[in-house]
Amino acid sequence: MASSPSGKPVLYSYFRSSCSWRVRIALALKGITYDQVPVNLLKDGGQQLAAEFQVVNPMQQVPALKIDGITLSQSLAIIEYLEETRPNPRLLPQDQKKRAQVRMISDHIVSGIQPLQNLAVLQRVGEKKLEWAQHYITNGFQALERILKNTAGRYCVGDEVSMADLCLVPQVYNAERYKVDLALYPTITRINKTLLELEAFQVSHPTKQPDTPAELRA
Amino acid sequence: MASSPSGKPVLYSYFRSSCSWRVRIALALKGITYDQVPVNLLKDGGQQLAAEFQVVNPMQQVPALKIDGITLSQSLAIIEYLEETRPNPRLLPQDQKKRAQVRMISDHIVSGIQPLQNLAVLQRVGEKKLEWAQHYITNGFQALERILKNTAGRYCVGDEVSMADLCLVPQVYNAERYKVDLALYPTITRINKTLLELEAFQVSHPTKQPDTPAELRA
Repeated sequence: MASSPSGKPVLYSYFRSSCSWRVRIALALKGITYDQVPVNLLKDGGQQLAAEFQVVNPMQQVPALKIDGITLSQSLAIIEYLEETRPNPRLLPQDQKKRAQVRMISDHIVSGIQPLQNLAVLQRVGEKKLEWAQHYITNGFQALERILKNTAGRYCVGDEVSMADLCLVPQVYNAERYKVDLALYPTITRINKTLLELEAFQVSHPTKQPDTPAELRA
Repeated sequence: MASSPSGKPVLYSYFRSSCSWRVRIALALKGITYDQVPVNLLKDGGQQLAAEFQVVNPMQQVPALKIDGITLSQSLAIIEYLEETRPNPRLLPQDQKKRAQVRMISDHIVSGIQPLQNLAVLQRVGEKKLEWAQHYITNGFQALERILKNTAGRYCVGDEVSMADLCLVPQVYNAERYKVDLALYPTITRINKTLLELEAFQVSHPTKQPDTPAELRA
């Protein structure tokens, strides 16, 4: 696996991993340039499980970010670290209660929805995987729609882009992949559309990564 | 559902919910007194789904904490809020890289292990639920053991109790419930045992809550 002769941070990432996408958005918003090393979750039985990748990230997952002499894993832990070390522009509001709302929405998506519809789990579920994914995304979006009615402005919490928005857009992308009826969630849909107009969400999009297969490129 | 005539924070909690336990440990460590309102996840088809509880927490989950005029949900978001507003004793180290390690371990447990073995998911899995729970806890603990070899001192990250420890102990409790062989994870087992000697982990234990059934009380 690549070192970083350029001295830039190195992101181990898979184009379609929603957790990887969250981190790519954070890096783009904060203007941090980085080298990207693709890790294909489908090829060779999952390249994240290879012995050489376990040396990079003992969790054997993407994303992982080599930065400042350490390697971090877990998308929200990475984003919180970037926020503490590169605070501009901020991804957590100044107000403590709003920060709590941002983290609550982020955790709801990251621990309440995404893990139940990720690739490895759906492979284990087997033939009912579409129904399973739809069930958990639908359940999670019903709650999320109710929460956003209290917190949203232009974006998930007020009018500033926050960590919650970095979680929302990749989760909506997954929902579309699994054919969830998004018409039931007008607030989610509106915010998602608004966010996708921002450059940081476009350049980090799964259809535009170095490892995006030609037939999926946009 | 109860208001708080005492003015104290109100924790909506279920004795055996590992997510609730994390927050109870944080409250105990920080010396925050609170009123507890039990929400039974099994009774009445799940009291967290009742319309009156949805008013309290639109996410229809425990834990939820009413505090400072707001109601927060998601255990890590609650703990981060407590840390920002009641910083002593701290649950996140001062050093930024160590903070990142604490969050990485916490997220690994909270989004990588617990959601895949929680009550609702296992009900949906059906008859293979024990095997399913063991699979995800075992997978998660293999990675966790590797991580802790790099980060642990007396506790998960160095020698100070941190948010990661609040996630570890309830997850080990779940592992024991699902008969996972813990002998394979000497670091996890050692840290868990050391933490259980601390008063905050004892008073918050599932066997000692107001809603713990008589036959499970310790």
